[in-house]
Amino acid sequence: MDFKLEVTDAKSKARAGVITTDHGQIETPIFMPVGTAGTVKTVHQRELNEDVKAQIILGNTYHLYLRPGLDVIEAAGGLHKFNGFEKPMLTDSGGYQVYSLKHRRKITEEGVKFQSHIDGSRHNFTPEVVMDIQRTIGADIIMAFDECTPYPCDRKYARESMEMTHRWLKRCCDRFDQTESKYGYSQTLFPIVQGSTYHDLREKSAETIASFGREGNAIGGLSVGEPAEMMYESTDLVCSILPADKPRYLMGVGTPENILECIALGVDMFDCVMPTRNARHGLIYTSEGIINIKNKKWEKDFSPLDPNLGGYVDTAYSKAYVRHLVHSSEALGAQIASIHNLAFYLWLVGEARAHIKAGDFSTWKNLILPKISSRL
Amino acid sequence: MDFKLEVTDAKSKARAGVITTDHGQIETPIFMPVGTAGTVKTVHQRELNEDVKAQIILGNTYHLYLRPGLDVIEAAGGLHKFNGFEKPMLTDSGGYQVYSLKHRRKITEEGVKFQSHIDGSRHNFTPEVVMDIQRTIGADIIMAFDECTPYPCDRKYARESMEMTHRWLKRCCDRFDQTESKYGYSQTLFPIVQGSTYHDLREKSAETIASFGREGNAIGGLSVGEPAEMMYESTDLVCSILPADKPRYLMGVGTPENILECIALGVDMFDCVMPTRNARHGLIYTSEGIINIKNKKWEKDFSPLDPNLGGYVDTAYSKAYVRHLVHSSEALGAQIASIHNLAFYLWLVGEARAHIKAGDFSTWKNLILPKISSRL
Repeated sequence: MDFKLEVTDAKSKARAGVITTDHGQIETPIFMPVGTAGTVKTVHQRELNEDVKAQIILGNTYHLYLRPGLDVIEAAGGLHKFNGFEKPMLTDSGGYQVYSLKHRRKITEEGVKFQSHIDGSRHNFTPEVVMDIQRTIGADIIMAFDECTPYPCDRKYARESMEMTHRWLKRCCDRFDQTESKYGYSQTLFPIVQGSTYHDLREKSAETIASFGREGNAIGGLSVGEPAEMMYESTDLVCSILPADKPRYLMGVGTPENILECIALGVDMFDCVMPTRNARHGLIYTSEGIINIKNKKWEKDFSPLDPNLGGYVDTAYSKAYVRHLVHSSEALGAQIASIHNLAFYLWLVGEARAHIKAGDFSTWKNLILPKISSRL
Repeated sequence: MDFKLEVTDAKSKARAGVITTDHGQIETPIFMPVGTAGTVKTVHQRELNEDVKAQIILGNTYHLYLRPGLDVIEAAGGLHKFNGFEKPMLTDSGGYQVYSLKHRRKITEEGVKFQSHIDGSRHNFTPEVVMDIQRTIGADIIMAFDECTPYPCDRKYARESMEMTHRWLKRCCDRFDQTESKYGYSQTLFPIVQGSTYHDLREKSAETIASFGREGNAIGGLSVGEPAEMMYESTDLVCSILPADKPRYLMGVGTPENILECIALGVDMFDCVMPTRNARHGLIYTSEGIINIKNKKWEKDFSPLDPNLGGYVDTAYSKAYVRHLVHSSEALGAQIASIHNLAFYLWLVGEARAHIKAGDFSTWKNLILPKISSRL
C-alpha cells in the first residue's frame, strides 16, 4: 500500500491524498460503504461502481467468519472473487462486534471467547486467529484486533483495556509479519488507537500506535454514544500525534456533519452503517437537507430525491414514489434510498476533496454544513 | 391497441404476434412481470428494461387503489409517470384480490364490498368503479371486473358466478366506452372468461366474452389449485373459441412448464408472481433445471446461476455467493434471484417465439421441457 499526501488545507487540518492498493486507488478523504456480510445491504456490485461510485468497501470479519465461513471464502479465492467487487476492500477485526455482543463474550488477555449470535456456537478470537482469518478473507487493508471500550467507561477500565489492545497489537503485527497474503496481492495492517474519552490515554495510545510504524492508522472507540464535541476533541488530539504521511481512518463515523468536521481535523477515511441503515428506515440525506420520506408532505412531491446529485436513482424516481415504496414496505424503497444515501456520502467526500485541493475547504464547509444538517 | 398475428405453428396451436400500444410494442408470446404496488418486488425499473428485458409489466388495481391511492397516481399523471416505467402496463381489476379476501368481502349483483387488508377500512368495488379506477391508474390494457371462482367450485355457484361476471362485463364495457383516457394515450379493455372447470360453462363463457368483440381476451379462474391437466383442458377449449386475430391472456399462469404447454394451446400473454415470489425463497429457474439455492450442494459452487443466460446477474455473481446471501437473509439475494428468474421467464418466452417463427416449436419444447422442469 502506498499513500501520497497531495494537499494539506491552509485554514484547517484537512488533507487530500491518494492511497494505492493492488486493487486500485482510493482518493482521500473517502467514505467506505459497509458491506457487513460481503454485501452492502440491498446494493448490487454494479451499483456500487456506477451509481454510488464507491472506491473501497468494508467487510466484517465477525460476520464473514460465521457466514459463509472461511472455507467458502478461501475456496472462492478470497472475498473479492467471492462477492465480485474488484476494487479495494477493508475488513474490521471483529473488535467492535465483540464489544456489541456484551452478554455473549468473555475477554481475557489471551483473546475473546464468544457465542455466535446466529446459533450460539462457541468461538475464540485471539490476535493471532484474527490475523489468520483476515489473511483468508483477503481484504487489502486489515485491522488489528482491539477492544472497543463503551461510553461512558471508567478510567481504570479504559487504561487497562487500552494497554491490552497495545499488547494485542504487538501480537497482531508479529503474526501478520510472519504470514503472507494468500491470493497474490498485498495486504496491509492498520493498528487502532483506543483510550476512551481520556485525553492522556488517547495521547499515550496514539504515540504507541504510531511507534509501530504501520502503513496507516485508525482511531477506534469513538462514535459509541459520546457527545460529538468529545469525539471531535479526541480525534483532533489523536490526529495531531499520528504521522501526517500515513492515512488516518476514523472508525464508525458518522453523520455527514461528523464527517466534514473530522475531515477538517485531518481524518482521511470513514465508514458507517448510517447511510444504509437510515435508508432502510426512510431517512434520506440530500444536498438540501435531511428528508424523512415517510412524512405526508412528500406524498405528492414528484421532484427527484436530490436535484443536485443526478445519478440513476435521482433521475428515475420521485420523492412521492419512494415515499409510496417505503410506506408500503416495498423492498425497492430501501434499495433506492440506500443507493442514494451512499451516493450522497461519496459525493460529499468528493466535494470536500475538490475544495481541499482548490484551497477553499473551510469556506465551503461553513456554507454547506447548515444546509445538509437541516431537516426538510 | 393493435395485434398482428405473425405466425401460427403448424404442429401445435402456438402463435407469434406483435401487440402495439401507445407505450410501445409487445412481442408475443410474452410473460408480464407482476408489479403489484407499482413495483416489481426488489427490481429497479432500469433492471426491468436492461436485464429482465420486460416488454410489459402488471399493476394490481386493488393494491394501487389502497396505496398510494388514486389522488397520488392522478397527480403524478398516471402510473407510468408515477413509477417511471415507460413501457406498456396492464392492470388487473381487483377480481382476484376480492377472491383472495375470502373473509373480508361480500359479493352482490351490484359489486363487492370489502375491507382493506391494511387498515380494515371499508370499500366498494363495482364494475363502474373499477373502470373509473383503471382509467385513473392509466394502464395501457385494463381488465374487466370479474369474480374468480375457487377450485373446487360447485356447478351451481360456478354457473351463477359466471353469469354475473358476464353481466358485470356489460357494465364494464358500457362505462369504459362512455369514458376516456385521462393522460392522452389509448387504453383497451380485456374481458375475462370464467366457468371454473366445467367444459360447458367455459364454452358458454368463451362464446359470450368473444361476442363483446373487444381487442383482446383473457382467461381467468385457472391456476387456483386445480390439477395442471384440468387447466390445460380448459385453456385448450377456450382458445379454440376465442378469436384467433386477438391476443389471448391466461391470467396468473404459471410454472415454466405451464407456460410452454399453454403457448402450445394458443395463449399469447402470461403473468405470475412465481418467478419473483420463489426467488425470494431461493428457488432459481435455469435453462438447466430448477435450483434450491439454499441447499448445501451450492455452498462452494462458484459457477454462474445460469451459464446460458449471460445477463448481469449471471456474470457478476456465483451460485455460492447467492446461496450465502439467501442463507444469511441478505436482501441482495432476493434481488439477484428475482432479476434472474424474471430474465429466465422472458428468455423462455423469447425462445418459444423464435422457435414458433422458425417452425420447430414443438421439437424444441419437447427437448427443453424435461430439462427446465428437473431439479438440480
